[in-house]
Amino acid sequence: MPDFSGGEVGWVRFEDFTSKRPFTFDSGETIPEFTLRYETYGKLNAARDNAIMVFHALSGDHHCAGVHSFDDAKPGWWNTMIGPGKPLDTTRFFVVCSNCVGGCQGSTGPGSLDPLTGREYRMNFPQITVRDMVRAQGRLVFDHLKIESLAAVVGGSMGGMQAMQWGIEFPERVRRVLALATTARQNAQAIAFNEVGRCAIMQDPEWKDGAYERNQGPDVGLSVARMMAHITYLSDKGMQRKFAKDRFEVASYLHHQGKSFVNRFDANTYIYITRALDRFDLYGPFNELWRAFLPMQARALVVGFTSDWLFPPAQNREIVYAMLKAGKNAAYAEVEMDYGHDSFLMDAPELREIMRAFLKEENA
Amino acid sequence: MPDFSGGEVGWVRFEDFTSKRPFTFDSGETIPEFTLRYETYGKLNAARDNAIMVFHALSGDHHCAGVHSFDDAKPGWWNTMIGPGKPLDTTRFFVVCSNCVGGCQGSTGPGSLDPLTGREYRMNFPQITVRDMVRAQGRLVFDHLKIESLAAVVGGSMGGMQAMQWGIEFPERVRRVLALATTARQNAQAIAFNEVGRCAIMQDPEWKDGAYERNQGPDVGLSVARMMAHITYLSDKGMQRKFAKDRFEVASYLHHQGKSFVNRFDANTYIYITRALDRFDLYGPFNELWRAFLPMQARALVVGFTSDWLFPPAQNREIVYAMLKAGKNAAYAEVEMDYGHDSFLMDAPELREIMRAFLKEENA
Repeated sequence: MPDFSGGEVGWVRFEDFTSKRPFTFDSGETIPEFTLRYETYGKLNAARDNAIMVFHALSGDHHCAGVHSFDDAKPGWWNTMIGPGKPLDTTRFFVVCSNCVGGCQGSTGPGSLDPLTGREYRMNFPQITVRDMVRAQGRLVFDHLKIESLAAVVGGSMGGMQAMQWGIEFPERVRRVLALATTARQNAQAIAFNEVGRCAIMQDPEWKDGAYERNQGPDVGLSVARMMAHITYLSDKGMQRKFAKDRFEVASYLHHQGKSFVNRFDANTYIYITRALDRFDLYGPFNELWRAFLPMQARALVVGFTSDWLFPPAQNREIVYAMLKAGKNAAYAEVEMDYGHDSFLMDAPELREIMRAFLKEENA
Repeated sequence: MPDFSGGEVGWVRFEDFTSKRPFTFDSGETIPEFTLRYETYGKLNAARDNAIMVFHALSGDHHCAGVHSFDDAKPGWWNTMIGPGKPLDTTRFFVVCSNCVGGCQGSTGPGSLDPLTGREYRMNFPQITVRDMVRAQGRLVFDHLKIESLAAVVGGSMGGMQAMQWGIEFPERVRRVLALATTARQNAQAIAFNEVGRCAIMQDPEWKDGAYERNQGPDVGLSVARMMAHITYLSDKGMQRKFAKDRFEVASYLHHQGKSFVNRFDANTYIYITRALDRFDLYGPFNELWRAFLPMQARALVVGFTSDWLFPPAQNREIVYAMLKAGKNAAYAEVEMDYGHDSFLMDAPELREIMRAFLKEENA
């Protein structure tokens, strides 16, 4: 087998794009401007048609490849997939990864200043949808980067929702949709876990209806929410393997997850984004998923993971069935991995090859 | 098909048994006396050999059948299984259900007064094990009720752990072990959920290292713990059915679960009992489950439920394999129900018939 490990994108820096035009959310509310933080890897070609947009999951960010300094031990969250010779091959593609509106990693969200009041939005930020995230990103891609057509939109989990929504929202501008470990609509169980997470945050006395000061937020609630959610990202079997020597180590592992999350994530954003996830519903008013995909022109690949019980394989398969029913060019791949929902973040030769093949076919 | 619905045990009252002898826990710590609250249904026969002990799960109590008053709308938690003509037939059996030591429903636990100090034990209560629960119940059965031999010990989830432990601890005094939806050792995932629940409680500022006043406890943490745990008692499919009309109803359903739990359960007991669950490990020092069952003389039936992902079928099957390897008379039944872990609490004809058949064979 050839060496698929590929090279590294190396030292990267984020950039900020600010759209100075008002943005109206699906809720009908408007903000006067917004910023999206993003990173790019590789080079945009002269035809400006070799770009791939990557979308992060709930707790992710715009930093998906490379390192931020020479002594940065932790590369971006999808570094295994993005780089020279990797599936998202930066010698061919111009890879863009953007934060989403409502976020807390440099993009405009509840923790940002409302230019109209000079104070933080907090819970006065408009309620968001996945479609809002996508339309905001559209401004970055079309208005700022001047890209007419994307070679692909790629993401897992919430990123997969965004990828599908991109294919639907901007049909003539997306040539491939690659969605992993995702769903067209969360089931009651996934909503239930999100609800308990929000409940932990919103019942924390430090939440103060969202009006906490920075660094004085509802850390207890947010860490509990994260610890619980983290269990849903793993699998029974994967945890057994990981904690085979001492199953009680799972406790300190989760505590570490909770603690580090509190240091990098905003509680109000957690509320906003989980609500956007709960609201996401491509089944739409007719409760018929295939109708959602009628506008889509892109080729699509949806990847499910056998051990994912948050957005299980069946929910990923359903998406492809619906795309096929809508007459689209769509394929489903199921990868056997025991990392649960987080499998899409892991480095597995099978997953690499599937992604590489899907992205290679077109001469972009 | 004959009518298996059976009659009702009717109006019942609890009783309290206090063992005035010191009790030494597996931890080595001793308390001078303890009380167990229990209920009984049916009549102990002259030979005193027709008794069945029933054990409740984590959040259950001693009230498993009948009603407490004429206008009591909610009968005991296993009323469907216990009564005249029901699987635990009170015309044949004398059914005893006891609270467990460490509990908060009338039995001695963290909220009880320490007779040596005159103050509540709180977190000074000795750490408990499932074996401690069983040995305490042994005093009730042998010392107080003067029962030499039990026709059966029966329980689901934590109750199943107690049933197995009874068969091991008092081999010549137990004739049948019936354990449902249980495990010989929790996996890392189940421990993880318990850990997050305890974390929610213990990080609630109202917990105060367990020294909260009654009715001023860590209600937020306890309700979050309960809401999360409740998800693990259900199943994806069951929730889809239950909330088919409106999947967002799951939110208010969980809030109700959290709220009502806080009114009836003590947070410190939740910590103590979940730790006992986490500690339960019949695999023992050799990591060989079958050795645990070598002393057992009882016939055993273990019932797994297809949709139970907390203590999944495989974990129930493993118990029976181990019993068989130890040369015991053991059988496994798997019931297809979509209520998840809580399936054992539901009324299903198949489950009734399996339990009835297992309890009928012997002329007790």
